[in-house]
Amino acid sequence: MTSLELQKLLDAVRAGTVDSASAAASITAAMRAAPFEDLGFARVDTHRELRQGFPEVILGLGKSPAQIAAIASRIISRRRPLLVTRAQPEAFDAVLEVAPAAKYHVEARAITLACGEVERGKGTIVIACAGTSDLHVAEEAAITADIMGNTIDRLYDVGVAGLHRILGEQNRLHDASVIIVVAGMEGALPSVVAGLVSVPVIAVPTSVGYGASFGGIAALLGMLNSCANGVAVVNIDNGFGAAAIASLINHG
Amino acid sequence: MTSLELQKLLDAVRAGTVDSASAAASITAAMRAAPFEDLGFARVDTHRELRQGFPEVILGLGKSPAQIAAIASRIISRRRPLLVTRAQPEAFDAVLEVAPAAKYHVEARAITLACGEVERGKGTIVIACAGTSDLHVAEEAAITADIMGNTIDRLYDVGVAGLHRILGEQNRLHDASVIIVVAGMEGALPSVVAGLVSVPVIAVPTSVGYGASFGGIAALLGMLNSCANGVAVVNIDNGFGAAAIASLINHG
Amino acid sequence: MTSLELQKLLDAVRAGTVDSASAAASITAAMRAAPFEDLGFARVDTHRELRQGFPEVILGLGKSPAQIAAIASRIISRRRPLLVTRAQPEAFDAVLEVAPAAKYHVEARAITLACGEVERGKGTIVIACAGTSDLHVAEEAAITADIMGNTIDRLYDVGVAGLHRILGEQNRLHDASVIIVVAGMEGALPSVVAGLVSVPVIAVPTSVGYGASFGGIAALLGMLNSCANGVAVVNIDNGFGAAAIASLINHG
Amino acid sequence: MTSLELQKLLDAVRAGTVDSASAAASITAAMRAAPFEDLGFARVDTHRELRQGFPEVILGLGKSPAQIAAIASRIISRRRPLLVTRAQPEAFDAVLEVAPAAKYHVEARAITLACGEVERGKGTIVIACAGTSDLHVAEEAAITADIMGNTIDRLYDVGVAGLHRILGEQNRLHDASVIIVVAGMEGALPSVVAGLVSVPVIAVPTSVGYGASFGGIAALLGMLNSCANGVAVVNIDNGFGAAAIASLINHG
Amino acid sequence: MTSLELQKLLDAVRAGTVDSASAAASITAAMRAAPFEDLGFARVDTHRELRQGFPEVILGLGKSPAQIAAIASRIISRRRPLLVTRAQPEAFDAVLEVAPAAKYHVEARAITLACGEVERGKGTIVIACAGTSDLHVAEEAAITADIMGNTIDRLYDVGVAGLHRILGEQNRLHDASVIIVVAGMEGALPSVVAGLVSVPVIAVPTSVGYGASFGGIAALLGMLNSCANGVAVVNIDNGFGAAAIASLINHG
Amino acid sequence: MTSLELQKLLDAVRAGTVDSASAAASITAAMRAAPFEDLGFARVDTHRELRQGFPEVILGLGKSPAQIAAIASRIISRRRPLLVTRAQPEAFDAVLEVAPAAKYHVEARAITLACGEVERGKGTIVIACAGTSDLHVAEEAAITADIMGNTIDRLYDVGVAGLHRILGEQNRLHDASVIIVVAGMEGALPSVVAGLVSVPVIAVPTSVGYGASFGGIAALLGMLNSCANGVAVVNIDNGFGAAAIASLINHG
Amino acid sequence: MTSLELQKLLDAVRAGTVDSASAAASITAAMRAAPFEDLGFARVDTHRELRQGFPEVILGLGKSPAQIAAIASRIISRRRPLLVTRAQPEAFDAVLEVAPAAKYHVEARAITLACGEVERGKGTIVIACAGTSDLHVAEEAAITADIMGNTIDRLYDVGVAGLHRILGEQNRLHDASVIIVVAGMEGALPSVVAGLVSVPVIAVPTSVGYGASFGGIAALLGMLNSCANGVAVVNIDNGFGAAAIASLINHG
Amino acid sequence: MTSLELQKLLDAVRAGTVDSASAAASITAAMRAAPFEDLGFARVDTHRELRQGFPEVILGLGKSPAQIAAIASRIISRRRPLLVTRAQPEAFDAVLEVAPAAKYHVEARAITLACGEVERGKGTIVIACAGTSDLHVAEEAAITADIMGNTIDRLYDVGVAGLHRILGEQNRLHDASVIIVVAGMEGALPSVVAGLVSVPVIAVPTSVGYGASFGGIAALLGMLNSCANGVAVVNIDNGFGAAAIASLINHG
Repeated sequence: MTSLELQKLLDAVRAGTVDSASAAASITAAMRAAPFEDLGFARVDTHRELRQGFPEVILGLGKSPAQIAAIASRIISRRRPLLVTRAQPEAFDAVLEVAPAAKYHVEARAITLACGEVERGKGTIVIACAGTSDLHVAEEAAITADIMGNTIDRLYDVGVAGLHRILGEQNRLHDASVIIVVAGMEGALPSVVAGLVSVPVIAVPTSVGYGASFGGIAALLGMLNSCANGVAVVNIDNGFGAAAIASLINHG
Repeated sequence: MTSLELQKLLDAVRAGTVDSASAAASITAAMRAAPFEDLGFARVDTHRELRQGFPEVILGLGKSPAQIAAIASRIISRRRPLLVTRAQPEAFDAVLEVAPAAKYHVEARAITLACGEVERGKGTIVIACAGTSDLHVAEEAAITADIMGNTIDRLYDVGVAGLHRILGEQNRLHDASVIIVVAGMEGALPSVVAGLVSVPVIAVPTSVGYGASFGGIAALLGMLNSCANGVAVVNIDNGFGAAAIASLINHG
Repeated sequence: MTSLELQKLLDAVRAGTVDSASAAASITAAMRAAPFEDLGFARVDTHRELRQGFPEVILGLGKSPAQIAAIASRIISRRRPLLVTRAQPEAFDAVLEVAPAAKYHVEARAITLACGEVERGKGTIVIACAGTSDLHVAEEAAITADIMGNTIDRLYDVGVAGLHRILGEQNRLHDASVIIVVAGMEGALPSVVAGLVSVPVIAVPTSVGYGASFGGIAALLGMLNSCANGVAVVNIDNGFGAAAIASLINHG
Repeated sequence: MTSLELQKLLDAVRAGTVDSASAAASITAAMRAAPFEDLGFARVDTHRELRQGFPEVILGLGKSPAQIAAIASRIISRRRPLLVTRAQPEAFDAVLEVAPAAKYHVEARAITLACGEVERGKGTIVIACAGTSDLHVAEEAAITADIMGNTIDRLYDVGVAGLHRILGEQNRLHDASVIIVVAGMEGALPSVVAGLVSVPVIAVPTSVGYGASFGGIAALLGMLNSCANGVAVVNIDNGFGAAAIASLINHG
Repeated sequence: MTSLELQKLLDAVRAGTVDSASAAASITAAMRAAPFEDLGFARVDTHRELRQGFPEVILGLGKSPAQIAAIASRIISRRRPLLVTRAQPEAFDAVLEVAPAAKYHVEARAITLACGEVERGKGTIVIACAGTSDLHVAEEAAITADIMGNTIDRLYDVGVAGLHRILGEQNRLHDASVIIVVAGMEGALPSVVAGLVSVPVIAVPTSVGYGASFGGIAALLGMLNSCANGVAVVNIDNGFGAAAIASLINHG
Repeated sequence: MTSLELQKLLDAVRAGTVDSASAAASITAAMRAAPFEDLGFARVDTHRELRQGFPEVILGLGKSPAQIAAIASRIISRRRPLLVTRAQPEAFDAVLEVAPAAKYHVEARAITLACGEVERGKGTIVIACAGTSDLHVAEEAAITADIMGNTIDRLYDVGVAGLHRILGEQNRLHDASVIIVVAGMEGALPSVVAGLVSVPVIAVPTSVGYGASFGGIAALLGMLNSCANGVAVVNIDNGFGAAAIASLINHG
Repeated sequence: MTSLELQKLLDAVRAGTVDSASAAASITAAMRAAPFEDLGFARVDTHRELRQGFPEVILGLGKSPAQIAAIASRIISRRRPLLVTRAQPEAFDAVLEVAPAAKYHVEARAITLACGEVERGKGTIVIACAGTSDLHVAEEAAITADIMGNTIDRLYDVGVAGLHRILGEQNRLHDASVIIVVAGMEGALPSVVAGLVSVPVIAVPTSVGYGASFGGIAALLGMLNSCANGVAVVNIDNGFGAAAIASLINHG
Repeated sequence: MTSLELQKLLDAVRAGTVDSASAAASITAAMRAAPFEDLGFARVDTHRELRQGFPEVILGLGKSPAQIAAIASRIISRRRPLLVTRAQPEAFDAVLEVAPAAKYHVEARAITLACGEVERGKGTIVIACAGTSDLHVAEEAAITADIMGNTIDRLYDVGVAGLHRILGEQNRLHDASVIIVVAGMEGALPSVVAGLVSVPVIAVPTSVGYGASFGGIAALLGMLNSCANGVAVVNIDNGFGAAAIASLINHG
């Protein structure tokens, strides 16, 4: 039982369409369910949605296709939306066997399967990225934000070397409730964007670059030291994490 | 003219208490004002509040008391709230001469002078810190969030070595609209907190620790790699920055 | 002659089942044996068990299958237990030719061949890991602790993002004589575990993660800076090393 | 009520010297006591001894003398042993006002006040250090191990540049139940010691050195990469932490 | 004899105002002069101006006031312009004794004494800095560029958090022959400036910032990874070095 | 319309060969053109040449062959010179389909297609490299400088271990208007070269080396700390960036 | 003409077996030879043996087989000994075509071809390594020292975890004129060896290890911080460099 | 009894000036002496001279004046030469009380007291430094080499920015048996020197510099990556260590 389902059940009770006794029975059953399922190699956190607003997401990195499929299978069996990030095509093949309707997003390297109703966020999440090479990360954020119930607006290849590209889109920036800014190399875009708006900016450094970019450290440090207010940072290439907190903000 | 003042003026026009002509005159005058004042060593960004919701804040670090006082003087003269962070007592002495009503917050090392009306945030910002040594940073966040119009709830010394201290305060965590978590050493508290709630967590690593804490790097890396969803990170010891984005979220 | 064999021999002398002369002869023979065998590319430390309680273990990394098999052959010929860590399947093939009864543990990437009697540790070593991706390292620790004569209890995928998973297993934690905690990403689990128990915690950072995990540095630094007492740390991904010191503690 | 007191109480019940009713009353009272005291800036973890075997220790670093004295006062009032590490002389002056019998250990920079009975460890903890400049850290370990109820044996200035100094003391090493090895510069001593014994070695890197010692990083990395088995590492200069885990091992 | 003097002499020969014999004598004398003067602790490079266009500059850092004054004395005695960077007031006091007309620039921490004619650069060097705290470095660049014969235009406190401050000064940027951009924190200003102009940009990272700015590393990496073309970088806080290469460009 | 074309048009107007009306029409048409073309995954910056003197260059790294070809196609369609750096052979195959006349420079890993007239630089750019292994980077610089309209002079394998190799080429160094110095390992060559000349030196560290060269960090730091004046540095292996700023200097 | 040949020629003159005129002719011819040969991509330093005692050695890393063979061909044509380090088998194939008598040393990854007489060093170079995995580097040192004219003594797998292995070989250590010590992981062996002898120790850190060995940084730092006197260090895995300086010492 | 004394004694026996019996008595007495003296905080290594050719040297860093004086007193009492490095003036005051004839070398920060005969090295040690700011380190090397029995030749301020300064001193370089090269900033001097000579070069990086010199890391890395043969490196600022190994080479 998700928090949205719980809320609807209680609304129904108040509206008189469900009687208290059967409502109580449903709630009790949900509470009795174990808070995790132990698969031996994994303990699926079945209460995460209640605590955090979205069911457990599978980070594909470092897990075998079989492990991913097994965990996915448990999530689907509870009829919750499925999201696997950092998924290789082999993982998708394995997931397809337990979830034939699942989709693979090549650019984002993510597997999704929408399921059940998800509460909609109140505004729009703008996802801006500095260059074409940042697309993998930006798309991971977009796919994540989408399945978590948010309206998204993509604004790609608007890096600071050609400022007019972002300055020309200020209207779209101002319409956002939260902005995710994805950038590699020197990672200057979040500072520029945050200086133009009055909404939270979630900065995602990417490993795009070479030499002294040190796999994204340059961009990460740049973003942590932003001279603009209203910027917070997630891990290098962590499009998922940026979307997760942006979704919480957009649902706040 | 702040965005709040602008909004009130337009409300008054709609309500008929102010006529269009004089409103137009006021707005025009504001628009004619230069978007910054050039003091030679500083260009005070007088439009920042319009763009970002709060006037320019003075980072005391690396500025002389005279420079700080001069910038403060320009902000006060426009009747905007004053906030100086990382302010030494000598800077406070200099500010007192241009702003006798200013206050110095010793623990937070901040100077403030409330002025004019600030739009109130909709919920509560919880500020949690792991240990007593993190107080400087937590208080900088608290003072900042306060002057930016937020209700705050302090939850101090609740580090993970004694989990019952934070587990016993889950109600206060659940009542927050956004949580700032301040921690040094291994910086594990944000992961634990974010695993318990469904609101955004802004993590602030502190330079508290020694040896392999490397001035806060250990905590910073820990927070960037949080296994919990809904965490974003600001610079080491940046209580101000955490409060700035938390305030934007709380005003969203 | 291992220390266990020596002790048994002396017990037999005291019990009168072995006469002093033949006991003295055995001991003298053992002492005459060279303390190492020189294979040219390797000097097998044949006295290590006497000094350290367990014969030399072969770190497979950086050694050719032929070199590994040659060293293994010398260990087996002295009838001591064999353990090869970081062993590729090719190394196992080579070892099989000199030790047909050897086993390969895929998850742990280890080759073992139990041989002779090993002194049993007095209690249980709990091996906890934070996530499914940490299994390689946790299993290396488990296989090592097992062959060194310890009872082990596996507690997998109990990371701090879902605290109830570890809090629900406190009984098993309290029953341990020493706990090995394996975690990547922010490496917060050892602090949480150590805060709950009064036994030594050996923390193993893993290279699980991406971006600012820097191949395990984030977890390593987090564990070194643990705010909880009773934690010591081994090298990144060093499941073997953790088990080696845990076994010494458990045999103390 | 500490675990030792609890055990004695139950022994007395079994022995018939205390009746069940009054024993039950005492235990109930102890359980009713809050698990922490909230001083505003600190939450003193009053249950830590029950969970971890020793009451909360005060890390003096980053706390004001007044804060240290206030926390110390709460610990003393519960009649538990007091230990403040990294204490400046000013902190000692402040503590003296609430605990006139407290002692200051200059070399260890620690404040202690023994109080009540502490369970004795079963063996001896050897504390070895490589050079005279490592004494601060070695003494912090010694003072800590002492107040936690351990017999200690100091073995100072036995660095590897003059191997005969440590080789000549092998008897003392073999008599230990656990060995703390403190070393700066290249930090080679723990590897050498661990190669000679069959007990756990807790290695403490120190910030002794200059240039490429990088404040102890060289020693830290050396110890983490020890080629000898049975070594685990604590933070740079963390004599306290080494003694805390050594004490747990020695009490196991 | 400087290259400018040499050129003038040859012009005079060609113009007939100086006869060949006396010109040859002057040139021979200059060539006979030793290419350096050995002061024991320093070898003053008396030919540097011939090779590099400006006489040796004294880096005050790490030299005693007496050493600085002694070297300065040798430069002045050859009637060349004097520049001491990173000079403490004590160094100025010592220099005053050998050069009573020398000036101390407090903000730039530099000592200068103009002497003889310096060839003028052909255009203007714009020196832009991001914040008030960057003034020390920007002024070191300005003083250096000035004494090397360049026209300079200061553009201070134009950081990217308030983009209109730099966008409003594009005319001054376009009039430059080379631009020095000084910035700390995330160091984004050079990318933004270089994206607007078609002249070389010399970027100077500063140590302004705290926490993850790591003494200027964040800004340095940001600038090295600039996505804009036409940017090259000098050492952290090296205002002098930026001006030296900018002057060469401006004299090209 | 490039700046060169604009200048020629205005010259023609002044010369009377073009009448004002048609000139105005041409200029207006150019200004009406959108400043970028949005390809979805990329926004081609069509005004970059006007602002920066050369059209947008494609960094091949991290872009798919199809993306590269699509952007290249847009640049060619505007009849501007094409440069793709860090291009794999697969990218060249894709580009060939839209630009059959394009050339692939194997050593430089670059694709070029000259098109239209490019303004010539006034002097010569010397490109010196320390060793044979630095050729990739030196050639990237050479190809870039060539297509940007510069005369180049290659001076390869002149590292400091055999000083006579560079000392014997001082004439060529003195004839340069700007020198690009490419070096890996300790990166000492720029300091030596800059000490010999009075023109700007652009230093390019390369990732050539092993061990403590750390992928070019050693060379990068060496160059940033050059004791010679007139040196500025670009990113590791960034031959393109060095040529881009050198070209601006040479066109200044 | 090498320095050895020059010396012999002069000896012959003194002995009267060669007359002065023909000796002068030979010397003049040698001096007339260009000090380097320019192959375009490489300038072979033909005078290096005169300056440094051994002809130019080819570092295979980063050079194509064709480039290596071309340089080798020039060295052989001057009848000097050939050494190629870091050579892949493909490079050996290419070299074989120009030097059919060349040998490939698999373990050392080196190509050699002895040619002409090399001056013999006066004593023995001991090459000790800590573990079997360090053999590649130790053998590179051995092959290099051998071709440079030194007697070598290999002492392999004598790491500090089993001290008796090195202590038992003290006689061989004392017979050395210089000792090369190769070690990875914590790199403690050079300190131990240097504490036992009174000859120079050249320490070579290797990249052997994992996790916090950071590709040899741990060993490098350990060796730089050696508490023993008489140790100097070369780059990680630089067996060649160690042998080169050891050979100079042994020829001194 | 030092090795020099031992050798002389044996010479005397062979020469018949000392009879075997009394020689045997002397040797036996020396062998009976403990190999170290235990002062509690220090174990003075009294056999170090026998093993390593020079008695134990006191590193003043991290030791109190009283500790330094106490160790010095023991060395003097055995009539061996005294050397204290990194000694503060306070340490000198304390040493003066036990050794009134000791000298303090301000520039080198060293205390010395020559005592007894030291074997002379066979050649000259040249000590070259790049700049005036490197004098502290160069002088530490000079004082150390001097007291260890070497002839030294100082060559100061010969950095690569003015190559003629070092090229003009090649004769002195060629006369050396070993060269110590001290340099900060980019640390290029050792490569240049080693390219000119055929003797070993010991490179000493210094912490001279700022910004990206990172306290000597830039120079250290540069030296480790030297493209010239015959270079080995000691710790940053370790003038003592360079002289110690140079002395061993010069005595070889």
